[in-house]
Amino acid sequence: MDRNYSSKVLAQAVHEISRLPGIGEKTALRLALHILKKDLTQAKALGNSIISLKENIKICKICNNISDSDFCSICTSNERDDTIICVVENTRDVMAVENTGQFFGHYHVLGGIISPMDGIGPADLSIDSLVERIEQNGIKEIIFALPTTMEGDTTNFYLYKKLTHTNTKISTLARGVAIGDDLEYTDEITLGRSLVNRIKFEQT
Amino acid sequence: MDRNYSSKVLAQAVHEISRLPGIGEKTALRLALHILKKDLTQAKALGNSIISLKENIKICKICNNISDSDFCSICTSNERDDTIICVVENTRDVMAVENTGQFFGHYHVLGGIISPMDGIGPADLSIDSLVERIEQNGIKEIIFALPTTMEGDTTNFYLYKKLTHTNTKISTLARGVAIGDDLEYTDEITLGRSLVNRIKFEQT
Repeated sequence: MDRNYSSKVLAQAVHEISRLPGIGEKTALRLALHILKKDLTQAKALGNSIISLKENIKICKICNNISDSDFCSICTSNERDDTIICVVENTRDVMAVENTGQFFGHYHVLGGIISPMDGIGPADLSIDSLVERIEQNGIKEIIFALPTTMEGDTTNFYLYKKLTHTNTKISTLARGVAIGDDLEYTDEITLGRSLVNRIKFEQT
Repeated sequence: MDRNYSSKVLAQAVHEISRLPGIGEKTALRLALHILKKDLTQAKALGNSIISLKENIKICKICNNISDSDFCSICTSNERDDTIICVVENTRDVMAVENTGQFFGHYHVLGGIISPMDGIGPADLSIDSLVERIEQNGIKEIIFALPTTMEGDTTNFYLYKKLTHTNTKISTLARGVAIGDDLEYTDEITLGRSLVNRIKFEQT
């Protein structure tokens, strides 16, 4: 710390806040001074909610998603289709799929994707528990909803090899021109794939 | 909250973090998931330092700056010149002046500047305590280091009227072309003032 903070408490708070990703020392100072202006209740709510994250959040023992208890609300729901599993990289992807309002099955959070560059191999991901789930329960379909990157494709392929013996239907998200996109700004690979995988025109 | 958080604890943390200025819900989620990945010690350090801001920080009873005790380290220092006071808007300006390494006197933090648009009048600022300090102690010079805005100029003028009876020397920061700036990109008012207030050339 090269700045002259007039208070060690302030310096400490700025130091801690600036350890967050994308937040530099200047922003951290701005945030700390903002908190100082608000009342104690609000500072306590913020501080305690951050500590509570680590103390009270659990990982669902079935799908590996973030949860308040040992089994998440999706896995324990009676209203969802338990014969279909959507495989995603992380919690944010569960939220993204949930926000579409188009999926009513269960999830499986891998906790990452295979990436030799980052030193992440199959053993670091919750792949064994996925295979177990598929082998034990009456799963009819698995949807791969992983990123459309080389790492995502590698993981898809690895999972496919691991799951093919279960004879479960395996599908993946459609790739194509995004809604609202101009063709001239769509990259060739995406446009090429959307031609190869063209679908029957239907009036909506 | 329109997103489907899988955990109420997570939703609560995201809600609290996104109340900070300049942090939206997506950034708050990114930060919360980052904290989740780190260990409990780090989450506690961050959370407690935020609460400590409100619980332990004090305002110096002399200069109004943020401090760990009733009197700040600058006001209680024996090594600083107590005959000169630099008047600034807030704590950040104290840091900015301190970082120049060119000022060794005392400070007075107004806690804002006169701004009728924001409903801030002289009574909201620590002006009376400044006048008292100057009247009581042997202050030889007061430096106005307020923003070069209309509000800053208004505050300068108000302070000048309040302090002129003390016969103390009153000065203000030099305004002129910033070091490293091109003349062609300097605004006319600044360039005009730097011509009027031109200084004797000295070889350095």
